[in-house]
Amino acid sequence: MDYYMEALQIHEKYRGKMQCSGKMEVRTKKDLSVLYTPGVAAVCREICRNPQDAYRYTNKGNTVGVVTDGSAVLGLGNIGGPAAIPVMEGKALLFKTFADIDAIPICLATQDTEEIIAIVKAIAPTLGGINLEDVAAPRCFEIEKRLQEELDIPVFHDDQHGTAIVVAAAIINGIKLVKKNMVDLKIVVSGAGAAGTAIAKMMMSMGAGEVIVCDKMGAIAAGDETLTTEMRELARVTNKRRQSGSLKEMMVNADVFIGVSAPGIVSEEMVNSMNRDAIVFPMANPEPEILPQLAKGAGARIVGTGRSDYPNQINNVLAFPGVFKGALKAGAKRITEEMKMAAARALADGISAEELNEEAILPDVLCPGIADRVAEAAARAWNR
Amino acid sequence: MDYYMEALQIHEKYRGKMQCSGKMEVRTKKDLSVLYTPGVAAVCREICRNPQDAYRYTNKGNTVGVVTDGSAVLGLGNIGGPAAIPVMEGKALLFKTFADIDAIPICLATQDTEEIIAIVKAIAPTLGGINLEDVAAPRCFEIEKRLQEELDIPVFHDDQHGTAIVVAAAIINGIKLVKKNMVDLKIVVSGAGAAGTAIAKMMMSMGAGEVIVCDKMGAIAAGDETLTTEMRELARVTNKRRQSGSLKEMMVNADVFIGVSAPGIVSEEMVNSMNRDAIVFPMANPEPEILPQLAKGAGARIVGTGRSDYPNQINNVLAFPGVFKGALKAGAKRITEEMKMAAARALADGISAEELNEEAILPDVLCPGIADRVAEAAARAWNR
Repeated sequence: MDYYMEALQIHEKYRGKMQCSGKMEVRTKKDLSVLYTPGVAAVCREICRNPQDAYRYTNKGNTVGVVTDGSAVLGLGNIGGPAAIPVMEGKALLFKTFADIDAIPICLATQDTEEIIAIVKAIAPTLGGINLEDVAAPRCFEIEKRLQEELDIPVFHDDQHGTAIVVAAAIINGIKLVKKNMVDLKIVVSGAGAAGTAIAKMMMSMGAGEVIVCDKMGAIAAGDETLTTEMRELARVTNKRRQSGSLKEMMVNADVFIGVSAPGIVSEEMVNSMNRDAIVFPMANPEPEILPQLAKGAGARIVGTGRSDYPNQINNVLAFPGVFKGALKAGAKRITEEMKMAAARALADGISAEELNEEAILPDVLCPGIADRVAEAAARAWNR
Repeated sequence: MDYYMEALQIHEKYRGKMQCSGKMEVRTKKDLSVLYTPGVAAVCREICRNPQDAYRYTNKGNTVGVVTDGSAVLGLGNIGGPAAIPVMEGKALLFKTFADIDAIPICLATQDTEEIIAIVKAIAPTLGGINLEDVAAPRCFEIEKRLQEELDIPVFHDDQHGTAIVVAAAIINGIKLVKKNMVDLKIVVSGAGAAGTAIAKMMMSMGAGEVIVCDKMGAIAAGDETLTTEMRELARVTNKRRQSGSLKEMMVNADVFIGVSAPGIVSEEMVNSMNRDAIVFPMANPEPEILPQLAKGAGARIVGTGRSDYPNQINNVLAFPGVFKGALKAGAKRITEEMKMAAARALADGISAEELNEEAILPDVLCPGIADRVAEAAARAWNR
């Protein structure tokens, strides 16, 4: 792609994308005495007495750690923590741009689950929240779960929940257009990694009639002894009729297809076997499960991908800035299912009835005010 | 002090002192494509192929981690990592103000030596240097040594080396005024913690005639089986005549007294027992080993403290911004003895011969250009 050369040039020119700045200037000796020693001692003493005062006197409450081990970087796979810095700086830039949150890239030199948990816990004092990013499944599930149990700040694996929130918003708006009800939907998810798992669970939480997740071996169903712990949990909440079979077989009479798997694995015939007014989101990056024009030609009514060069980009940028902004604003200790659902609904409502159409089922990623709308909904859901 | 209330107010008003900002704006979909996905993949691939390219394409080369476990915070003692955030944010503000370096406060929730080493190594990929801060002795020695051995970026414990550099500069200029030579000096250091140890070693490197370090038990001398490993090493390079005795006894006929120990432990009689034209730096904070007016009254010719409300403030701010700026600029893998000595000499030269006097032995901490002067000297020393 043409973007590559330009990306190299601009990254080299600016030496990355993020920097720090002071909230005030140091111009006089008095400034030094108030902002540093001896004045700062009074502030430390307050926090020592009451650790929650870190939110009052430091930047903790507006700081998010963007943590990766570089094991599942979008479109690149396992490149390791150090090579993932440009993505994490990019994420930090988006946090700042869309939510005025100060995000710190933390690119780890380890991919060991227990080490990652211990490290993130140890560096958490300065952080108001943790955004896990590009950490491979199944490790990501354990890391997120344990960190959330052991820390009192929100921990959010964006590849799971950010994606799930935006997909849920897209489905909410998609079924408005095709006039179907959530409870009647048969949803097939291709891919049982971080994103697929979270999407499937969230759609069940939101009342979808039937959700079936397929991996390379076909539909995941309860009772299969070869499943990992996480997949077993997934099988417990999805595929109620315990169907088995290939992705192709599952897609017959489906209303919604969501792909977070591999390029080109969905044929026109498979899309054609879905119910009328099918909603198809082939989101594998950069090459989708089926090209949008082929899906449309095979009868899909609404098509969305992860790419910016097709209509209906399903992009996490619509969710994570607002979700964290809301959580930090509300002083949330975790990001609950209710907050995620509220975020999805607020995001769906972010595009007006007049603007909503088959080629515009979500607000534009650059639409001003979206993060604030999502933030308010998430904060309200925590406070409820 | 009056600064306390004002410090609380300003910290609460701004919620701390540091924030992040982007180096560029995200305004269009094309910006997203170049700065984030898909363009960023090209940058990741370059760094994956050649890890040193992190310096070329990310902010690593201008980022310093300000790491503490909060075990020895100036004037407060062991308050722990979380309560030390205001100091580390302050340090980050000084890094930005004086050297345009992006410093990240990292306040650890552990005080275990091995854990600290493992954590700092694991988060090092985004960092171009590590400033250890307010870590207690003797743990600080092991942590600094091991991190420097195991990482290829500069690791600098400011309480040791920053202090030593500024004290060395003050002595260089002090002996110009009293017309003594370095090789003839008898220097007594009170305090065998992080600062005292580093000051003593640095003065030996710089050619001081005799350096004796005293702790609560008196002079530290080789052959004492009760000494810790670090103190044994200190004893090996100092106190060549293996003198034993109290601080009071050691101070007789000393030319220089350096206090990094406890308030009020030096009497006028002790200062009076020193050689003529004595240089006395009682730097215990906030209460010095002897008040400057008492030291002067007892015959000291040059007196300096850590405080801003007396003449001759011996303040690390004069050293660390420039030392790191020089090290980052030169691509130094560590901060060598030569770099520290060059920094001390550059700092001493930062006040002109006309300005130099008994009440002004160092440049003003707010003097513009000091960090650049120190940086150039440190960079030159690395490249030599």
